[in-house]
Amino acid sequence: LNDRSSKVGVIGVPIHMGQPRPGTEHGPEAMREGGLISKLEGLGLDVEDQGDLFLEKHDEDIHDHPAKNVKNVGSASSQIADSVYNTIKSGRTCLALGGDHSMAIGSIYGHSLAEPDHVVIWVDAHADINTPLTSSSGNMHGMPLSFLVKEVQPYLPDIPHFDNIKPCLSAKNIAYIGLRDVDPGERYIIEKLGIHSFSMTEVDKFGIKDCVEKALHAVDPEGNKPIHLSFDIDALDPSLAPSTGTPVPGGLSIREGNYIAEELAATGRLTCVDLAEVNPKLGNDRDNETTVRSAITIIQHCFGNRRQGVYPKDYKFPIPEKVVLPMPS
Amino acid sequence: LNDRSSKVGVIGVPIHMGQPRPGTEHGPEAMREGGLISKLEGLGLDVEDQGDLFLEKHDEDIHDHPAKNVKNVGSASSQIADSVYNTIKSGRTCLALGGDHSMAIGSIYGHSLAEPDHVVIWVDAHADINTPLTSSSGNMHGMPLSFLVKEVQPYLPDIPHFDNIKPCLSAKNIAYIGLRDVDPGERYIIEKLGIHSFSMTEVDKFGIKDCVEKALHAVDPEGNKPIHLSFDIDALDPSLAPSTGTPVPGGLSIREGNYIAEELAATGRLTCVDLAEVNPKLGNDRDNETTVRSAITIIQHCFGNRRQGVYPKDYKFPIPEKVVLPMPS
Amino acid sequence: LNDRSSKVGVIGVPIHMGQPRPGTEHGPEAMREGGLISKLEGLGLDVEDQGDLFLEKHDEDIHDHPAKNVKNVGSASSQIADSVYNTIKSGRTCLALGGDHSMAIGSIYGHSLAEPDHVVIWVDAHADINTPLTSSSGNMHGMPLSFLVKEVQPYLPDIPHFDNIKPCLSAKNIAYIGLRDVDPGERYIIEKLGIHSFSMTEVDKFGIKDCVEKALHAVDPEGNKPIHLSFDIDALDPSLAPSTGTPVPGGLSIREGNYIAEELAATGRLTCVDLAEVNPKLGNDRDNETTVRSAITIIQHCFGNRRQGVYPKDYKFPIPEKVVLPMPS
Ligand SMILES: [Mn+2]
Ligand SMILES: [Mn+2]
Ligand SMILES: [Mn+2]
Ligand SMILES: [Mn+2]
Ligand SMILES: [Mn+2]
Ligand SMILES: [Mn+2]
Repeated sequence: LNDRSSKVGVIGVPIHMGQPRPGTEHGPEAMREGGLISKLEGLGLDVEDQGDLFLEKHDEDIHDHPAKNVKNVGSASSQIADSVYNTIKSGRTCLALGGDHSMAIGSIYGHSLAEPDHVVIWVDAHADINTPLTSSSGNMHGMPLSFLVKEVQPYLPDIPHFDNIKPCLSAKNIAYIGLRDVDPGERYIIEKLGIHSFSMTEVDKFGIKDCVEKALHAVDPEGNKPIHLSFDIDALDPSLAPSTGTPVPGGLSIREGNYIAEELAATGRLTCVDLAEVNPKLGNDRDNETTVRSAITIIQHCFGNRRQGVYPKDYKFPIPEKVVLPMPS
Repeated sequence: LNDRSSKVGVIGVPIHMGQPRPGTEHGPEAMREGGLISKLEGLGLDVEDQGDLFLEKHDEDIHDHPAKNVKNVGSASSQIADSVYNTIKSGRTCLALGGDHSMAIGSIYGHSLAEPDHVVIWVDAHADINTPLTSSSGNMHGMPLSFLVKEVQPYLPDIPHFDNIKPCLSAKNIAYIGLRDVDPGERYIIEKLGIHSFSMTEVDKFGIKDCVEKALHAVDPEGNKPIHLSFDIDALDPSLAPSTGTPVPGGLSIREGNYIAEELAATGRLTCVDLAEVNPKLGNDRDNETTVRSAITIIQHCFGNRRQGVYPKDYKFPIPEKVVLPMPS
Repeated sequence: LNDRSSKVGVIGVPIHMGQPRPGTEHGPEAMREGGLISKLEGLGLDVEDQGDLFLEKHDEDIHDHPAKNVKNVGSASSQIADSVYNTIKSGRTCLALGGDHSMAIGSIYGHSLAEPDHVVIWVDAHADINTPLTSSSGNMHGMPLSFLVKEVQPYLPDIPHFDNIKPCLSAKNIAYIGLRDVDPGERYIIEKLGIHSFSMTEVDKFGIKDCVEKALHAVDPEGNKPIHLSFDIDALDPSLAPSTGTPVPGGLSIREGNYIAEELAATGRLTCVDLAEVNPKLGNDRDNETTVRSAITIIQHCFGNRRQGVYPKDYKFPIPEKVVLPMPS
């Protein structure tokens, strides 16, 4: 796995059908224009940018409750899963740039095909584990985990267009960090299935260090499984990520976001990262810039940047030749 | 007491005579317009909104040092005390919406008439325990605790119009959280009387979890007394509560504010909450909206909201009838 | 040393040649106009404001790599060192108002002449320990510690105009707090020399209390040495100090800044404080005001202000003469 950590495959996932606000399809583009690729290369990584997925578009779809745009989201999920699977199988860490958070259906499932024993750290203001029946909106970006968690399947209605996606996670292999806007049905599921949850209350109570440590230990007590980080930018405080569809006050600081990223990177087992819900069509230019900068800094810390500083393995410290500097003319 | 926690009585206290800036009299209105009542009902509470108190107005009053508007504040204090007493006696938790912080003279005294053994958690940037003689301004919103604390009485000059208010607190039954702008005389009182104080220094030092825990233990080691929370919105950082009369940088985060509220609510002994010093006449529309949103979120967490999510006791998780969702037409 | 703590000597150091952005030369002026001197006096201190140093100006200087403006910075360093030395020798705590952070070459060296056994707490987003050879910019505000640390000397090229400055620090007597943008060569030096570093990662991990405690213990296990605090305003988050040349997101809160200041002041051994990199020519009026207010509050807490409140040693609590306040007419 260590070998993988210096090689990154970047996939743009321009999906927006998991929620109603146009714009998340421009998330990958905004992060690339913010200099993401060159900044990753500046960390000494071998970066393969595979461009954006060309997602199938189905004009005829369900636009009503209980699961809107299920045909589009279903076919996109298959495409995303294939792409993530191939990237991981090629020996690279996968960076999937969303797109709304319904992207995680495909990316986590694709990850599971390559690494069936993986675990998930879900960083989000929201739990995204509504079933089509508990959801009040029918927006699928609020449901991805319900399709992926085995124990939730009995509570799902039959959903068409999802035959290619199989539930691949156990409740015990998921940990949330950053929750602060959780629906009643979601809280019920979390409690009944014992999903590990570090809401903002726990972050306030224990501090981010303990939360990350406990989360990692909870999902993988022996510390040897591949890790999927699904990072919803709305986990951060709205002051740091205003350009997102469902901001919730009282979020993670950029320091806490970076800390999570640094610690996951330090495991050497981070195999796939989703960065979801950047929506450049929301807010003004400054909001956009702030949001993209936050997203990029989180990603940089997922891929080796450390605030204490880093130098390449082969770094040669410059030694003077003891030539006196010239005097000014 | 648990029975009380699902029933709330809301009292608007449109007082502004405790300080010089017009506008705090519109605090209750601003919080109601921000949707407070329906949000409390959304938590499954039985809410009785008693409207605003119609406070006596005395045109002839003292406008100078050492205690300005003492006649108005004195008569308002009696009215507030009656109203809080009646609300608590009716078996409801009392929510008193200020209004400037002189409101707490009446609300704490009224609380004491119903529950003589209560304790006070005072969350504020300021200590509000100036005597008329230590105050440099004569504004009574900086003095409420000096009228209420038994041990301070020898240091008070005789004040007219306060015959209806009796000192009802022992110094040991008060704990401060959030102090960062404390006058010399106030510090002197706090030290000499040993009032429990968790200034921002202690919040930075021990973290909010330990401060809340220590504060609760300090005022009530056996953990069985009714609790009065007097929350001055200026305890929060000015970025979260700009529309207030005496903002002080370096305040509590909304996370810390919510944490305090969640923990006090979790005791099951929170009997009365003051929310003071929202002033919608200060700042622009955005400042107002920010301030009111902060006030409402604090109140929601005082009354049962939790960031981890909540569901009603009688919640029935929706089970599918296994009908295949219709295909798109 | 305790005697020193009530007497302050203020030196303005209007230097800007250590970096390319005009404006840091107005830092001292901006802090004075923000009311610094009267606020220090309000703390009961004996303040001697020595005005700004009249720094020598050399029009002919090196403007290129590897160390720009070395003649100007070199001569300024001598002047600063003299002034700091004299202030400390006169029995006052020295407050040096920058100016860019190249000011610390002179102030730390001057401090060492008066107190050879001093230690340094360096609070900054940056490590400022580039050598002329590791620096990619040649800006000397990124190099001061390389000239001061004995163990770094073998790696320095010969630099003209620095004959008056001698390396006076051991690597083990420096601790960083707040780092988050560290160059590869700097990280290499920090690691190889074992310089104590509490980057934002450690602040997030251990909390500010532990970081300050560990930093103080690391540089001075017996706790009896004079302390030099070199505070770069860019250690604070850019939201608190926008008017500075090289802001880096994810910085210290004003609370953490004040906490550091309070704790260092509480040692009774704080002998010299630099406040560097306030640049009133950057940002708008509001940015300036924010930055200056932050700088001043940090300084106030370095010189005795405490958020829990303070009262003078000879404070006499006002006792009423028991005269009834007059009734309103
Ligand atoms: Mn979310
Ligand atoms: Mn999400
Ligand atoms: Mn206050
Ligand atoms: Mn108050
Ligand atoms: Mn700096
Ligand atoms: Mn610096």
